[in-house]
Amino acid sequence: MENIFEARQENLKKKLIENKIKGLAVFKDENIFYLTGFYGKDTGSIALITKKETVLLTHFIHFEQAFQSVSAKNTRIIKFLGQKFNKLSEILCEMDIKHCGFEGSGISHDSFLRAGEVLKESGIEITNNPGLVEDLRLIKDEYEIKAIKKACEITRDTFEFILKKSSDKIRKFSEIGLAFEIESSMVKKGASGRSFDLVIANNRASSLPHHVPSGKTINVGILLFDLGCKYGHYCSDFTRTIFLDGQKDSKNQDKLKKLKQIYDIVLQAQVKAAKACRAGMTCKELDHISRDFIDEKGYGKFFGHGLGHGVGLEIHELPTVSYNDDTILKENMVITIEPGIYLEGIGGVRIEDIVLVKDGGCENFYSDSKALMVLE
Amino acid sequence: MENIFEARQENLKKKLIENKIKGLAVFKDENIFYLTGFYGKDTGSIALITKKETVLLTHFIHFEQAFQSVSAKNTRIIKFLGQKFNKLSEILCEMDIKHCGFEGSGISHDSFLRAGEVLKESGIEITNNPGLVEDLRLIKDEYEIKAIKKACEITRDTFEFILKKSSDKIRKFSEIGLAFEIESSMVKKGASGRSFDLVIANNRASSLPHHVPSGKTINVGILLFDLGCKYGHYCSDFTRTIFLDGQKDSKNQDKLKKLKQIYDIVLQAQVKAAKACRAGMTCKELDHISRDFIDEKGYGKFFGHGLGHGVGLEIHELPTVSYNDDTILKENMVITIEPGIYLEGIGGVRIEDIVLVKDGGCENFYSDSKALMVLE
Repeated sequence: MENIFEARQENLKKKLIENKIKGLAVFKDENIFYLTGFYGKDTGSIALITKKETVLLTHFIHFEQAFQSVSAKNTRIIKFLGQKFNKLSEILCEMDIKHCGFEGSGISHDSFLRAGEVLKESGIEITNNPGLVEDLRLIKDEYEIKAIKKACEITRDTFEFILKKSSDKIRKFSEIGLAFEIESSMVKKGASGRSFDLVIANNRASSLPHHVPSGKTINVGILLFDLGCKYGHYCSDFTRTIFLDGQKDSKNQDKLKKLKQIYDIVLQAQVKAAKACRAGMTCKELDHISRDFIDEKGYGKFFGHGLGHGVGLEIHELPTVSYNDDTILKENMVITIEPGIYLEGIGGVRIEDIVLVKDGGCENFYSDSKALMVLE
Repeated sequence: MENIFEARQENLKKKLIENKIKGLAVFKDENIFYLTGFYGKDTGSIALITKKETVLLTHFIHFEQAFQSVSAKNTRIIKFLGQKFNKLSEILCEMDIKHCGFEGSGISHDSFLRAGEVLKESGIEITNNPGLVEDLRLIKDEYEIKAIKKACEITRDTFEFILKKSSDKIRKFSEIGLAFEIESSMVKKGASGRSFDLVIANNRASSLPHHVPSGKTINVGILLFDLGCKYGHYCSDFTRTIFLDGQKDSKNQDKLKKLKQIYDIVLQAQVKAAKACRAGMTCKELDHISRDFIDEKGYGKFFGHGLGHGVGLEIHELPTVSYNDDTILKENMVITIEPGIYLEGIGGVRIEDIVLVKDGGCENFYSDSKALMVLE
C-alpha cells in the first residue's frame, strides 16, 4: 500500500501546479503532521513541499522525534539550531527554487516579513499561498475517519459512564473537578487528552457558550457538558445538556420549566438538521434548517453562533457551517451539528453531534439517545 | 488603588507615542488578557488601545464573559458577529484614526492582508508594530510575581507528593498515566490545569527534550519530569530527573552509572548559573556559565538548547536565555535556568528552576533539594 503521507503530498503537488509555485513552505503544526506524520506543538518546524521531494526542517531538540515519526521515503529531515529561515534559504538555493509559496495562514505577519528579508538576500521571492493544505483536509480519508470515530466513541462512552452517577454524586463535584474527572476517564479509555478545555456549565453559566468551569460546587438545575478528546491526534466534539433533580428549589422552578421547553426546541432543531444533512447542499442551507425552526419558535436571536464546523486534526476547522457560508458539503467531510439557545441570566441549552457527510445522507458518530434527561 | 489593567494600558500608550501610532490593534490572547483582564483561548478578539480609551472587540458568544471579566473603567466592550475587521474599521472611523498599528506578531500574514484590504476601503492605513506588549510583559508586576510563585508552589508540592511513592508504586504507572495523575493532583491543589503537555520520560526517552509520554509502563532506571501548571493564567515550569531502583538489571548498570555522573555535571552547571544570575548581566553571559562548565566536562555538544526562557502568561516568553541573546537581565524578569545533557539511545538529564531576577542576585521559586535521588 502507498504511504498515506506520500499520497497526501501528491495531492498537494497538484495544488502547487495550479498556484504556479515550485515549493510551498508549510508552518502550521497540524498541516505538518498531515503531510509528514511528525506531530509537534509550537515546535517552529517547517515542511517544504516541492514537486520532487519533501523536506522537514525541525529544531535540534525535536530531531530524534521527527526521525522516529516520519515514514514517507521521499521526506528528508534536516535539523536547524537558531536561524531557520537561513536554513530554508540554503535548501531552496540547493534546489534552485527562486520563488516559494508560503502558508501565510500559518505564520505571523511579522515572521513572514522577516523570512522575506532573509530569503531575498539569496534572490528568493516568497508569496502568500494560504489554506492549500486546509483545502485537502476538508475531505477526510479512511485513516482520519477511523481516528475521529474512535475519539467520538471514547467521549460518548465517558459521558454514559458519568450519567450512571446519581444527581447527588454529581453534585459533590465542582465544575472544574467534574471536567477533570471526565478527562481522566477519557485518557483511561485510550485518548491522549482533551481536544479543548472542556466546558461544564451549571445553571446561569450554561448561557455562556464558552464558559470556563469554575470551582463552585454543582447545584440542582441545568448542566451543560461540552466535551472532546484526542485519539491519534484527531478530535471529537460532543455537547449534551441534562437536568439534575434534587431538593426542590421552588424559586427556580419557572426557569427550569422554560429551559425544558427550550430543550425540546433545540433537540428538534438538531434532529431536523442531522436528518437533512447530505452531500450537495450548502453549509448555509444546513444552518438554516435549524435556524429557521428556532426562529419560528421565537428564539432566533438567542442562537448566536453558526450551526457547526468541521472537525479533524483541529477542533474547529473547515467548513464553517454558518448562515452565510456557501461551501458545498461533500462526501467524507466531518462536521458538527450543534444548535443552541442561550438566555442570559437564566441558562442555555446546546446539543451537538458529529456527522460524516455522505451522498444522500450522513452518518452520525453518536448513537446515544438525546431525549431530555433528568438525573435523580 | 489604580486598576492594574489601566496601569498597563498607560505603559503601552507611551510605546504608541514612541512608535508614532495613534492606536494599536492587539490580537494575541495573552496580550489581550494582560491589557484588559479578559482571557479567552482562540476567541479571535481584538483589543484596540488608543491614547484616549481601550476597545475590546469580541464575538457575540464571548461577550458576557468579557463583560464579567473587564474591570478597567476606560475599556468599552463591543461585540461582533461575523466580519470583525469591518467592525474595527467602523470604530477607527468614529475615532478619526487614519493610521493604526497592528500587532503583526499576533496575527497571521494572511489575516493581516485581509484586514489591510478592509481598512483601506475606509482610508485607514495599517502598519506592523510587533512585540510592544511583550516588551512590557518582560518585567513582571507584583500581581504577576505572586501568581507565578503560587503556580510554582503547587507544582513543587505535587512533585514532592509523587516522591513519597515507592519505586514499585511509580512503576505501576505508564508515562502518560503518571502525567495525568500529576495534572490531577495539581488541579486539586488549586491550579486551573497544566501549562503545557507534561513530559514524563523514562530511560531512552529522557534523551528527547520534548518527549510525548507513551502508554508504556515505567521501568527501573532514569525518569525525567518536566511539569508545569497554571494559576490565575500564569505558568510554572519545573524539571527534575530521578532514578528508580528495583530489581537489578545488570546490562544497564553501565548506562545508569554514566547517567548519574551526568546528573552531577548538570546539577553543578545549574547551581552555578542560579548563583550567578542577577540584574545587569546579559542572557548570553548567564547561558555561558552553564554551557562553559558542561563544555569543560566534555558534554558541550549534548546540551542542544538554550539555558532558559522567560515564563509568565506563556510558558515560553521573552527573554530567550540562550548563547547568542544580548538581552540585559533586569529586576523582576522571571526566567528558567535549565541546563541538560542528552545522550541519544541512552538517556538525558535536565534540571530546571524558575528564578526572579533581582539587583545583585535572584530569588529561586523552588526550594527543594536537587541532590541526586534514587527512589527505592
